[in-house]
This record gives sequence, structure tokens and C-alpha cells, in this order.
Amino acid sequence: MADARYDVVGIGNAIVDIIGRCDEALLAKIGAQKGSMRLVDADEITRLYAEMGAGVEISGGSAANTIAGIASFGGRASFIGTVANDEFGKIFAHDIRSIGVTFTAPLASGTAPTSRSLILVTPDGERTMHTFLGISTSLGEKQLDLELIRNSAILYLEGYLFDEPDAKRSFHLAVQTAKSAGRKVALSLSDGFCVDRHRAEFLDLIRSGIDILFANESEIKSLYQTESFELAAESARNDTKLAVLTRSGKGSIILGDGRTVSIAPEPISEVVDTTGAGDLYAAGFLFGYARGMSLEISGRLASLAASEIISHIGARPAVPLQQFARDRGVIS
Amino acid sequence: MADARYDVVGIGNAIVDIIGRCDEALLAKIGAQKGSMRLVDADEITRLYAEMGAGVEISGGSAANTIAGIASFGGRASFIGTVANDEFGKIFAHDIRSIGVTFTAPLASGTAPTSRSLILVTPDGERTMHTFLGISTSLGEKQLDLELIRNSAILYLEGYLFDEPDAKRSFHLAVQTAKSAGRKVALSLSDGFCVDRHRAEFLDLIRSGIDILFANESEIKSLYQTESFELAAESARNDTKLAVLTRSGKGSIILGDGRTVSIAPEPISEVVDTTGAGDLYAAGFLFGYARGMSLEISGRLASLAASEIISHIGARPAVPLQQFARDRGVIS
Repeated sequence: MADARYDVVGIGNAIVDIIGRCDEALLAKIGAQKGSMRLVDADEITRLYAEMGAGVEISGGSAANTIAGIASFGGRASFIGTVANDEFGKIFAHDIRSIGVTFTAPLASGTAPTSRSLILVTPDGERTMHTFLGISTSLGEKQLDLELIRNSAILYLEGYLFDEPDAKRSFHLAVQTAKSAGRKVALSLSDGFCVDRHRAEFLDLIRSGIDILFANESEIKSLYQTESFELAAESARNDTKLAVLTRSGKGSIILGDGRTVSIAPEPISEVVDTTGAGDLYAAGFLFGYARGMSLEISGRLASLAASEIISHIGARPAVPLQQFARDRGVIS
Repeated sequence: MADARYDVVGIGNAIVDIIGRCDEALLAKIGAQKGSMRLVDADEITRLYAEMGAGVEISGGSAANTIAGIASFGGRASFIGTVANDEFGKIFAHDIRSIGVTFTAPLASGTAPTSRSLILVTPDGERTMHTFLGISTSLGEKQLDLELIRNSAILYLEGYLFDEPDAKRSFHLAVQTAKSAGRKVALSLSDGFCVDRHRAEFLDLIRSGIDILFANESEIKSLYQTESFELAAESARNDTKLAVLTRSGKGSIILGDGRTVSIAPEPISEVVDTTGAGDLYAAGFLFGYARGMSLEISGRLASLAASEIISHIGARPAVPLQQFARDRGVIS
């Protein structure tokens, strides 16, 4: 296997987040389940936007957040995703490149706008998302940069992309390409409802070719249709080489190589906005793992990155994570 | 004089702020003077944006921030300004309406985009702005809602609008309309360089029809071309009914009715981003003054609002200012 030019290449929806505060009453009124992500159409996103308070626009997208986090740690990272030739598309491309990520996709022409996600943040810091998938699902096989995939030590995929048939096909081609080149493949389950929609296909993919599986408690329980986190975790251990499972305030566990490594959550003074916590956890872990660090250190980097992201609004790091981790003595 | 339906109507540039961190070296490289606002063309804004790190997009605009702040205090506020039918225009209209401001302008069609300002925030919290004036300067006389002006106790104008001949003419018509209806007129000088560009006209306007003049130290010194703040302040006292002069960390003074009222700065733990400090100071003062509160209390509300806005990114209040001021016992 040739040396990889990149530590990680991510494939995911390229999304701009519109983040606003909301109270519990508004969630009840619109019938939203707190902490979930729901796909909505153009009419519904317009209606929900009108209900919401003043917002802040920040680049987002689950795998894109992870890739930005890896670059912030000093990792060599690249991203494959589609944006339109509109204001939000220009913002997305600028922001991801400004942090040093290789992002070669041109602004796509067409009628669909750049994808956006309305993120309602309740006073407890939890986020509830409504995503209007515009052009980001137009990720056909011809848009895949296979050379980039062959040149990356790890291919990282976001489960959300399974929601669109075109993107799903690209997903499978990307996995085959990475495997043939001797690379590792990582998958994030993204969301419990996303798992519900694609359970059988996710299980097939995980059992046949995923090296590293990222999931939170509700996602892994949904995948194995059990109320027991312990049972779900043991199933994941059997199905993948490495299962990385997060449990919010209870920390996380990493199962693999016949071991179970527990990672304590990082202490934090105030949770401002949990948007991106899972994405940045994956960033820290993948950066450490790609650089050959131990599961313990990779997990610690994961936990550190998550703690940074929930201390402010938005799902992209506010400070360079490399310095953040150095200041805490985790890397040199 | 009939009772006013609105406490304040503001006229200004409708702008979306693109806020990003930057170091002192970048300011030196692009030759920017820290703390200033410079107008740039489409090419230059594109070049500067490429130099800047990842950004956050938040509705802004000087007078628009002030008006949003007045609404946040529970005041009846309205805004006159122009946005285009693009993503930034929709964001601006949504955000200002979501806080309860009357904003009736339709999304304008035309080739110019919604105006935007690149705001570079240095580690000390100071902001340096580069503004690309798109459609917001298309504020012709026919776009002025004269009925709205007649129905507002105070007309508030941002000095920046003097940079465009069309908008300047609208400005004078708005002042005449307000005066004829027996209303008060307030003006913010906006920026030292803006004063340099229009000194004679500003002085004419101030001496002929401004009831309340807002300026910071560098603006008032520039207006009267003196290095002495005390001399400048005495000149302002002679030229207007009420001069409200801010001095950053040194607090502010209000000169009028033969009195000089000193307002201490509000203690604050950390200055995150000074964007909007002057705008929100004006909001607190105008809200108090329009409601018949004393100069002391109006000044205290001004100082409180400024302290809230510099404690976070962006120039719009993150919490309702009415509650913020109630919690501190300044209003009931």
C-alpha cells in the first residue's frame, strides 16, 4: 500500500447551518422531537424559518464538520460534497478551504440551491435540526474524485447520505475504491431516524466493509433494535473491527482488538450548543488513529474536540484544535 | 403633535455581517487601520474574503442594529432600508422582523446584491470593517415611507448613508418630514473617516436640525478638527440640543439642558467582539429617552446594552435587553 497523501477524505452533505435560539414551546408547536434531525421540503423550511428567531449562519454538514476538525488538529484532510453557485455555496467553499481542507468541487449549476439546516437550540444547549437538502444530494458517481479516495488513509462517510439513491450508489463505489486501494473505511450512523430508514442496508455495509463505526447511544440501539446499550455494543463489537460509541455526558467507549477502552467526558463549564459534538468527536478520534496514536489517546482527542465545540455556537472549531490539545498536554 | 405610533424609526444601510477572526499581521498586510470602516468594491471584497478565515454570517448594519436593540428593550421600532432578493436579503428581513421590528420594504430586484460587511476581529476584540455597499444605497426618495417617519417620535439616521448622493437626498427629505411633524431627529456620525468625507455637510445638518447627536471620541474630534476631546465636546454642546459622546472603556458623557451627565462603563468579564457597541449604546439611550426617562437612566440603559453586545460575536442582542435591564434593576 502506497503512503497516503491525506489522512482522511470525507464524503457528506455540504450544508450551511442557520442557528437560532428557541424555547421548548416552539418545539412542541412544530411537533419536533428534541435532538433529532428531520428532512423537510422547501415549503416547510420556509414555514419553520418564519417561526424561528434571529439566526446566525455558519458552515456545517456532519462529515464536513469532522473534516474541518481534522484539519484544525493539523491533519491532512479533504472533502467531497456538492454546493450550488449561490451565497451559501460560496460561504461553504470559503470556510472549509480557509481551514486548510482540500475541496476541489466547483460550484454546481442547476436549479437546486445549496443545502441548509435550521438548527433550533433550546436553553439546555440541545439542538433540533430540520434540513432542506438542496444540491448536496447531487453526488453522482461522476462527481466522486476516486484518485482522492485512493490517496487517503481513511475514507469517512456520513450516514445521512443514504437518504438519496444517487448518493447511496456513490457511497458504495467510494467504499469499493478505498478497499481496493488498501485503505480503511469509517462510517457515522448520523441519526437514530436515519438508522430506522436504512437499517438493513447499514447492517450489510457494516458487516461487509466498515473498519470503524461511529454511533451514539440512540443510533446503536436503533441499529440493533434493542433497549440495552450493552447488548448493542457487543453486537457492534462482533460486526466491525472498531466500534466507537458515544454517550453524551457519560463519555464514550471504544471496542476493538479484543479490548474495551472507556473515555471520560471532558469537564466543561457551560454547554452552549451541542451542534457538532458527535462530528468533532469523530474528528479527534480519526486524527489520532490516522497518525497511529493509541485508542486511549485518540479517544482523548475526540473528547477534547467535542468539549471545544459545545462551548460555543456552531459546529466548526472556534480555536485551532492542535493548540487546544497541546495546551492540555495530549499531543506535543 | 399627535401621539407617535413608533418610538423610533431608523434609516440606514441594510447589511449582513461576515465576521471572522484575524491577527494583527493580516491587518498590516492588507493595510487596514484597526477599528475603522472602509468602503470597498466587489473585486476588493472578494480578495479580502479569500484572505480571511472561516466566518459567521449575522445580520448587521449600524442603524439596523440600533433599531433591533430598541425592539429588544420592548420599544416600538421600525426600519427603512433596502435589501436584494438573494439569500442575504432574506436573512436580513427575517432577522429584523423576528425581533418585532416593522420592516415593510420588499426585496428589491436589480443587479446589485444585498450589502455585506467583512468584519475582522483581532484577539483584543476590536473590529475592523470592509463594507461592500450593494443595493442598500439604493434608498431613493420614493422608497422612503414618509407616513412611518411622521408616526415615529424619533427619526434616527446613520452617517454612513451620507456616502451615496441618492441616499443623502433621502436623508434630507426624511429630516424635513420629521421636523414638520414635530418629531425629534437623531444622527450617528458612524465613523471618523465618514466624518472626514462629509464634515461641512454634517456640520450644516447638525446646526440646522439635529436634536440628538451620537459620536465617539474619534468622530467628534474629527468633526471639530481638534485633538482635544473637551474642546470638541463643548463645540457639540453649542451646536445641538443633546450631544451623546462615547469613549469606549472610559464610559460616556451626555451634554444637554445646560448639564453634563457622566455615565460609567458597565463592568464586563471579557470583551469578545466590539462590533455594534456604539449601535447598541444608541439603542439603550433612544429607548429610554423616547419613553421619557432621565438622561441618567437613558445613559445607563445605553451602557448596559453596549456591555451585552461586546460579550459575544455579532452586533444583535443575544438575549432580550428588556430582561437584561430588568435583571439589573434599571427598569421594572
